[in-house]
Amino acid sequence: MTLDYVLFTSSAGEILHNFLSQRNYSHVGVLVDQHTLAHCYPRIQAFLPEHVLIEIQSGEEHKTLDTCAQIWSQMTDVRLDRKSILLNLGGGVIGDMGGFCAATYKRGIDFIQVPTTLLAQVDASVGGKLGIDFKELKNHIGLFRQPERVIIDVNFLSTLSSRELRSGLAEVIKHCLIADANAWQNLRQEIGFFKQCIAKPALIQDHIAQWEYWVTHSVGVKAKVVEQDPSEKGLRKILNFGHTLGHALESYFLGDPAAKLLHGEAIALGMILESHLSLDKLLPEHFQEIESFIEEVYETVDLGSVPWENITQRMLQDKKNIMGQVRFSLLDALGKANFDQQVAEEKIKEAIEYYIRNHA
Amino acid sequence: MTLDYVLFTSSAGEILHNFLSQRNYSHVGVLVDQHTLAHCYPRIQAFLPEHVLIEIQSGEEHKTLDTCAQIWSQMTDVRLDRKSILLNLGGGVIGDMGGFCAATYKRGIDFIQVPTTLLAQVDASVGGKLGIDFKELKNHIGLFRQPERVIIDVNFLSTLSSRELRSGLAEVIKHCLIADANAWQNLRQEIGFFKQCIAKPALIQDHIAQWEYWVTHSVGVKAKVVEQDPSEKGLRKILNFGHTLGHALESYFLGDPAAKLLHGEAIALGMILESHLSLDKLLPEHFQEIESFIEEVYETVDLGSVPWENITQRMLQDKKNIMGQVRFSLLDALGKANFDQQVAEEKIKEAIEYYIRNHA
Repeated sequence: MTLDYVLFTSSAGEILHNFLSQRNYSHVGVLVDQHTLAHCYPRIQAFLPEHVLIEIQSGEEHKTLDTCAQIWSQMTDVRLDRKSILLNLGGGVIGDMGGFCAATYKRGIDFIQVPTTLLAQVDASVGGKLGIDFKELKNHIGLFRQPERVIIDVNFLSTLSSRELRSGLAEVIKHCLIADANAWQNLRQEIGFFKQCIAKPALIQDHIAQWEYWVTHSVGVKAKVVEQDPSEKGLRKILNFGHTLGHALESYFLGDPAAKLLHGEAIALGMILESHLSLDKLLPEHFQEIESFIEEVYETVDLGSVPWENITQRMLQDKKNIMGQVRFSLLDALGKANFDQQVAEEKIKEAIEYYIRNHA
Repeated sequence: MTLDYVLFTSSAGEILHNFLSQRNYSHVGVLVDQHTLAHCYPRIQAFLPEHVLIEIQSGEEHKTLDTCAQIWSQMTDVRLDRKSILLNLGGGVIGDMGGFCAATYKRGIDFIQVPTTLLAQVDASVGGKLGIDFKELKNHIGLFRQPERVIIDVNFLSTLSSRELRSGLAEVIKHCLIADANAWQNLRQEIGFFKQCIAKPALIQDHIAQWEYWVTHSVGVKAKVVEQDPSEKGLRKILNFGHTLGHALESYFLGDPAAKLLHGEAIALGMILESHLSLDKLLPEHFQEIESFIEEVYETVDLGSVPWENITQRMLQDKKNIMGQVRFSLLDALGKANFDQQVAEEKIKEAIEYYIRNHA
C-alpha cells in the first residue's frame, strides 16, 4: 500500500477524531444517506466535533445532478465556507457524488472518504475519481481529485445487506484477475467463506482479520495501478476489466427498478462476458474458472430481451473510447490484463449469446 | 506577461488554426451564444477544422446548472470523447461555464478560452477560475483549472454593445487601482478616449494598438497576482476589490430584468462603495478621483430601495469569508490593495448611505 492518505483502521471514529483535532476546519459537514445515518453514523458520531448532517436518498438512481443540487443547497444553507470539510460516509454513490460536490463547492473544499461498503472500500475510495451519472451514462460528469484522507474500517461491512456485500466482492475478484494470479487461486479456495459471509454479513465481525486481508490486498492492487497512471492515460484502464459491457448493462437496467443491478452485480456479469471476449489469449480452462466462480456467487441476469443496439449505443459513450471505437480492457491470462483492445461487434454478440445459452 | 498559455493576437483564427493543426484532437466543439454565433464565429469559422457548434442563450441569468446540463447533453449527443477539445467563444459566462463543463465532462477534456468581451479578456480568461451561479450566488459552484490556451484578440471588442464595453472597463480600472498608480493616472487622462469608444464600439477597429496596450496591461496585472497565489490563499484576494459588495448587489438585481446590472457595472458601483470603506487609509482626494471617474463613465444605480439585510445575507455567502465574517479587499492607497479586511457593519451602511445621498 503506497498511497499515504489511505488509512486502514478498526476505528474510523478515532482516526477522524485525531485528524480533525489536528486541522483547523471552520465547519464539518457529514454526508449520509438513510442507511448510513441509521447504521454507520452512530459508530462515529461521538468521535466527531460539532458538525452538521447532510442527508440524501441512497441508491445509484440518485447519483444525479438533481441530488448534487440538493447537496450544494444544503451545504449553502448550513453556511459551509471554504475552510470547511465534508465527510462522505457511505458507499460509492456517497463518495463519488459527495466528493464531486465538495470539489466544486466554492471552487473546492476539503473532503474525507469514509467508505462503508465493500465496493467503495476496495474500489471507489482510491484513485480520486469523482462524479455522477448523466443521461443514464455512468460517471459521465465528474473530475479527478484526491481526498484529504480515505479511512477504511472493515467493521462497517457488517452493516451491509447480503446483496451489497456480494456486489462489492466483484471488484475484489477483478483485482485478483487483472493483477494477481496467486490471489485468485486463494480467493477460489475461500469461496465457501465468502458465501457464508454474504449469506449473513453480521458474521464479518468474527472475521475482521480475514476481511482486512482481502480489502487491503484489493486496495493495494488498485493503488499500485493508479499510482503508475493517475489520470488514466494507459495502464489504469486495466481497472476497467468487466466495466465496458458491465456499465452499459448496469445503465440499461437502471430504468427498471425490478431488474436493477447493483454495480458489482453488473461488473460480475461484465467479467464473464469480457473474459469470453478475452478467449483469443485467455485459456478456455481459465475462462471456465472465472465463469464458475461468478456463477456460484451471483445470480443469473436475464439478457434475452436486451436490445443489442441499445447496449452498443451505451458502449459508444464509454469514457475509454476514442474516435468512436469501443475499447475493452481484457485478460491476457489469469492475473494479467491489457487495455485499449478493439473487439469485433460479432465477438461481442457471441459473448452475449453464449451467456444467454449457458445461463437460462 | 508571464503566463505562457495566454496569447495576444490580431487574428484569433490563425492562432486557433496553428494550435489545432499541431494537436491531434478527435473532435472540436465550439461553444457560442446567439451573439457570438452571429458576430464572432464568422471571424474564425474558416480557420477551424471540422467542428460542431454548441449553442446556448447569452446572459448571466443563464449561467446555471440547467444550462450546464444543456451543454453536457449536447456534448454527449455530438459524441465528444475524452480526446476532444472545447473552444469557448464568448464572454465571461461562456468562458466560466464552458470551462466548467469541459473540465467535468468525462472527468475533464481540454478547452481553449477565446474571450470576446473586454471583461472576459482582462479578467475571466486568466486565472483558471471556472464555474456557475447557484441559488443566486455568483460562481458558487466551480473549480480551478487552466485552459490549454487563452487567445486574446481585441478585434472582437468592436462587436460589443456600448454597455458591455463599459462593463469590461471596470476590471481595467480595478487592475490599475489595486496595483499600478501610474497606470491609473494614465487611464484618467484617457477618459475621453474611453467614452468615445464606449459610445461607438466600432471605433475600436481604428484604435487597435491602444486597446491592445490596455488589455495587455490589465492581463499583466492579473497574471502577476495569480502566479504568486494561484489558489487564492492570500494575495490573489486583492483582485476582489469592489467585488464583495459588487457581487452581492449584482446577484440582488439579477432577479429584476429591468434593473439588472452587468458584472462590470456592479463592480464599478462596488468600487465606489469599497473605496469609501477604504477611507481609513485611502486619502479623501483619491477617493474623489475614483468616484468622479466612475461617475463620469457609469450610470447611477438606485440603491434606495435595496433591503440591507438581503445584501448582508448575500455577502455572508461570499467565498472569501471564513467563520461567518465578511472579509473585504480594500485600498491602502492608489495602486495598493490589501485583503482579509474586516469592516464594521456600520461602516458598510455608511458607504451605501453616502452613495444614495450623492447619487440621487
